[in-house]
Amino acid sequence: MTLPVFDLAAIERAATSQLVLDTVRAALIAHAEGRSSVPPPLHMAFPEADGDCHVKAGWITGAADFTVKIATGFYSNHGLGIPTNHGLVCVISAHTGQVRALLDDRGLLTAWRTAAAGALITHAMARPDARTLAVFGTGEQALLQATWLAELRTISTVLVHGRSPHKANALCEQLHARGLDARPAATQEAAAADMVITTTPATSPVLNATHVREGAHVTGIGTDMPHKNELPPALFHRAQLIATDDHAQCLDHGDFAHAVRAGATAQDSDIAAGHLLKAPADRPETAITVADLTGVGALDAALASAVLDQLLR
Amino acid sequence: MTLPVFDLAAIERAATSQLVLDTVRAALIAHAEGRSSVPPPLHMAFPEADGDCHVKAGWITGAADFTVKIATGFYSNHGLGIPTNHGLVCVISAHTGQVRALLDDRGLLTAWRTAAAGALITHAMARPDARTLAVFGTGEQALLQATWLAELRTISTVLVHGRSPHKANALCEQLHARGLDARPAATQEAAAADMVITTTPATSPVLNATHVREGAHVTGIGTDMPHKNELPPALFHRAQLIATDDHAQCLDHGDFAHAVRAGATAQDSDIAAGHLLKAPADRPETAITVADLTGVGALDAALASAVLDQLLR
Repeated sequence: MTLPVFDLAAIERAATSQLVLDTVRAALIAHAEGRSSVPPPLHMAFPEADGDCHVKAGWITGAADFTVKIATGFYSNHGLGIPTNHGLVCVISAHTGQVRALLDDRGLLTAWRTAAAGALITHAMARPDARTLAVFGTGEQALLQATWLAELRTISTVLVHGRSPHKANALCEQLHARGLDARPAATQEAAAADMVITTTPATSPVLNATHVREGAHVTGIGTDMPHKNELPPALFHRAQLIATDDHAQCLDHGDFAHAVRAGATAQDSDIAAGHLLKAPADRPETAITVADLTGVGALDAALASAVLDQLLR
Repeated sequence: MTLPVFDLAAIERAATSQLVLDTVRAALIAHAEGRSSVPPPLHMAFPEADGDCHVKAGWITGAADFTVKIATGFYSNHGLGIPTNHGLVCVISAHTGQVRALLDDRGLLTAWRTAAAGALITHAMARPDARTLAVFGTGEQALLQATWLAELRTISTVLVHGRSPHKANALCEQLHARGLDARPAATQEAAAADMVITTTPATSPVLNATHVREGAHVTGIGTDMPHKNELPPALFHRAQLIATDDHAQCLDHGDFAHAVRAGATAQDSDIAAGHLLKAPADRPETAITVADLTGVGALDAALASAVLDQLLR
C-alpha cells in the first residue's frame, strides 16, 4: 500500500472555513477540559544555515488520530528565492499506530488554525455590538484574522497598523478584495478600536495600554517565544477578563508571562479560552478583556484529522 | 511539486549491504568524534491501545540532510492481524529545511543500521582468527547480525540460543538458506563461542560471565531501555576493552549502565565504538572484549540520506 500524500491545493479545497472553525472550536474546548495530550516538542538548530526545525505532536484524548507536525524555518532562504518555512503533518491512527496519510500543507493548517482560534476567541470575548477591528501587523495572519472574524460577525472597518505604509496599504487592498472596508491607522487610533488583534513578531509592546478604550477586547497571537512581546503588562492590569489558550505555555512565553513577571496581574488571573467558547462569560459594558494565544498542538491534531477525513470522503 | 515517497521495496533495493555498512561505519566514526547532533526524542503514549510513538531526529554535523524518524509500536496489533511496528523517515535538507523525500521503510533502515553497527563493531573487536559465532535470541536481529557479520569475515558455525527450540530451529534454517552453518546450542555452549552477539529483549542476563572464554568478544545490542539487561556485570569486570556506541546513552540505559551501577566497572572504562572502527585497538590474545550498543540517531540520518541519494540517482 502506498502512503497517501495530499498536496497544498487538495488541502486548501478540503479545509473549508466552516470545517476549520468547527474543528478548532471543539479542539479548544477539549484542550480547556484537559482532554488533550501535547508532549514537549523536539528541536534542532542549524546555525550555519540560520535554520531550525521543530517537531510537535498532539492528540485530542480518545480521538481516532494523532499528528506529528514537522516545521522548519530557514531564514536565509529568501536569498535563494525559496520560502522560509516548510513543513508537513503526519496523521497517524491512535488505535494502530499506522500512518494514515501525509498532509504536505507547507504550514497552511498551522496558519489557519491560528487564524480560527484568534477569530473564535475574539468573537466570544468582544461585546456583541463591537464593530471596528484593528489589526497590528501586515502579514498573513493579519489578513487571515480579519477575514475569519468577518465570517463570524459584522465588521464595519478594519484599521491596519504596520510599520511599513506600503505593506499596510497592500493589506488594505487585500481586505477590500474580500469585501471589507479597511484603511491604514496610526497606533493610537488602532489601539482605540472595539476589537484589536496583534499579529506581529514584536519584541516590545506594539500599543499603549492607555489608548485601549473601556469596553474593548484585545487578542494577542504573535508572542510565541520568550523574547517576543506584543501586549503591555499595563493592559493586563486594566483587564477584567484574561483568557489564555494554554495556561502553562502562556505563563512560560506569552504576553501573559510578561504581565505576570511585571507584577501587573496574578499568575492565576486567567481562564482557559476554550471555556469561554463553551459558555461565554458575562462582561460589564465597560470591561476591557484580553486573550493571549500561543498556539496549541492539540489543534493541529484535530484539524489535520478532520481535513484528512474530508479528503478521503 | 509532489513530495516523493519511496516504499519498502524501492528502499530495500537501494540499500545494498555495502552501502549500509559503509554509511554506518562513517556515521559511527563521526558520532565518536562529536560530529553529530541528536536532540532528546519526543514520546507519546496511548495506554488504551497499548501503543506508543517515538520521534527521533539526527544529523551528522555538516551533512546535506538531517532526518526525523517517526516510529510507532502498538502491541495489540497482532490480534488485528497487522504489524506491531510502523514508521517512516523524513529526509530534510539541512541547507534549506525543504523536505526532500519520505522513506516509508516500515522500520527497515533502523533494523539494518542496527545490524550493520553490531557486525562492524564485532568484526573490529573480535580476534582476527575468531570463527564461531553465537547469537542469543531468534528474532530478526539475530538473523541480520549473523548475516551481516558473515559479509565481513568467515564464520565457521553459528550457534543459536533461544528459549523456544522451535524458533531456534527456524532461525537455523534461515541461516542455512544464506549459506551459513548453524545449529541450536544451550546457553553454556553458546556463551563459549569466539564471538557472541545478544539480540534479546531480556530483563536479566542471558549468559553467565564465567562461561565466556578468554580471547572472546561479546556484543550486546538488545538493551535499549533501563529495565532491559542482557549482559552480566561480571562480564564487564572481566573485560579488558569495553566499547559503547554512545557513552551517555549506554551509561543511562545500556548493559554498561547495569555494570557501572553494580560496581563491576568504572563509568569511564569505555571507549567510543567509532574510534575502534577508525583505528582498531591492540588486544592481547587472551583478552575478553565487550561492546554495548544502544542505537544512535545520527546513524538513521546518515543512512536515510545515503539511501535517498541512491534512490534519486
